[in-house]
Amino acid sequence: MADETGIEALIALMARLPGLGPRSARRAVLVLLKKRAQLMAPLAQALAEVALAAKDCRICGNISTAEICPICADPARATGEICVVEDVADLWAMERGKVFRGRYHVLGGTLSALDAVGPEDLGIPRLVARVADEGIREVILALNATVDGQTTAHYIADALAGTGAQITTLAQGVPIGGELDYLDDGTIGAALRARRRL
Amino acid sequence: MADETGIEALIALMARLPGLGPRSARRAVLVLLKKRAQLMAPLAQALAEVALAAKDCRICGNISTAEICPICADPARATGEICVVEDVADLWAMERGKVFRGRYHVLGGTLSALDAVGPEDLGIPRLVARVADEGIREVILALNATVDGQTTAHYIADALAGTGAQITTLAQGVPIGGELDYLDDGTIGAALRARRRL
Repeated sequence: MADETGIEALIALMARLPGLGPRSARRAVLVLLKKRAQLMAPLAQALAEVALAAKDCRICGNISTAEICPICADPARATGEICVVEDVADLWAMERGKVFRGRYHVLGGTLSALDAVGPEDLGIPRLVARVADEGIREVILALNATVDGQTTAHYIADALAGTGAQITTLAQGVPIGGELDYLDDGTIGAALRARRRL
Repeated sequence: MADETGIEALIALMARLPGLGPRSARRAVLVLLKKRAQLMAPLAQALAEVALAAKDCRICGNISTAEICPICADPARATGEICVVEDVADLWAMERGKVFRGRYHVLGGTLSALDAVGPEDLGIPRLVARVADEGIREVILALNATVDGQTTAHYIADALAGTGAQITTLAQGVPIGGELDYLDDGTIGAALRARRRL
């Protein structure tokens, strides 16, 4: 209870961030209040700048501070491959993997009859156009292994059937460092079916 | 990996908040990026305003947006009682308890020979002066039950010995809702020694 409308409003805003509840938001604001010059002012500045500059890339849907994101703007990434992901978070995760060197298409969700999310909402017609325009040879469907993700993957595979591009998906199997004892049965089954010669 | 200096700098700043690591800071920034108008811009605004307006109360050391904090400025809280706490967080915790109606003195730490924190750094001479100036009848030492906290409490009790004010400390015992089985031996011992007639 900060007894102060300004500070209380700040705590309420901070509490809306994922991973912070009302209690940890209060703790974070206290730390900020104690480091006003070193942390609070620079954070306010950085947030204001990014809030103003950030935009959705109109080619792939990635979020960056440019009209066209650095990945779409980089000619070295015109490898003829597009990786389809559900969310910008998944794009960032793929980039952390440092293996994929092509470009992306961010759906921004999955097909859902219940939530009235159709192919246009996910930019699927735009993806089909890109495959032809950019001479894409392979579309990698890196969607989540959920029912909605897999339904969407099948829909996209159908939509791309006429383009001639090869459609692939991420391999399923044992995660690096994963222990068999803790894996679910489905993953063990998938890993066994996809076993490779050593 | 946001591939963007502005967004990466923002993630690095967010990761310095307590309760957020690099991973959860990235997740928080992604949510902010998706809610630029509804959350990111208002948060930047609130942070900038509070960073500019927040100051330490020159009477008690509480942080607020006024030169003198709302508690010191409220004449209804001139009850002749001062509660001494280590930190603004402890003041907020006391206020949440809604029982204490007097004023505070925030030490901002504990006496520490190792860290060269002396009585002046904690404003103890200022506290002694307040007790005389404000006609304080009771000083409640609400310091943490740690070795440093208790050392500081004893020092303050000695410093206030000549003022005629009564020195008290918070009761020690079983927390409300606490189960005996999970309490440490020290707390059970303290609760038993301080037992009351029903």
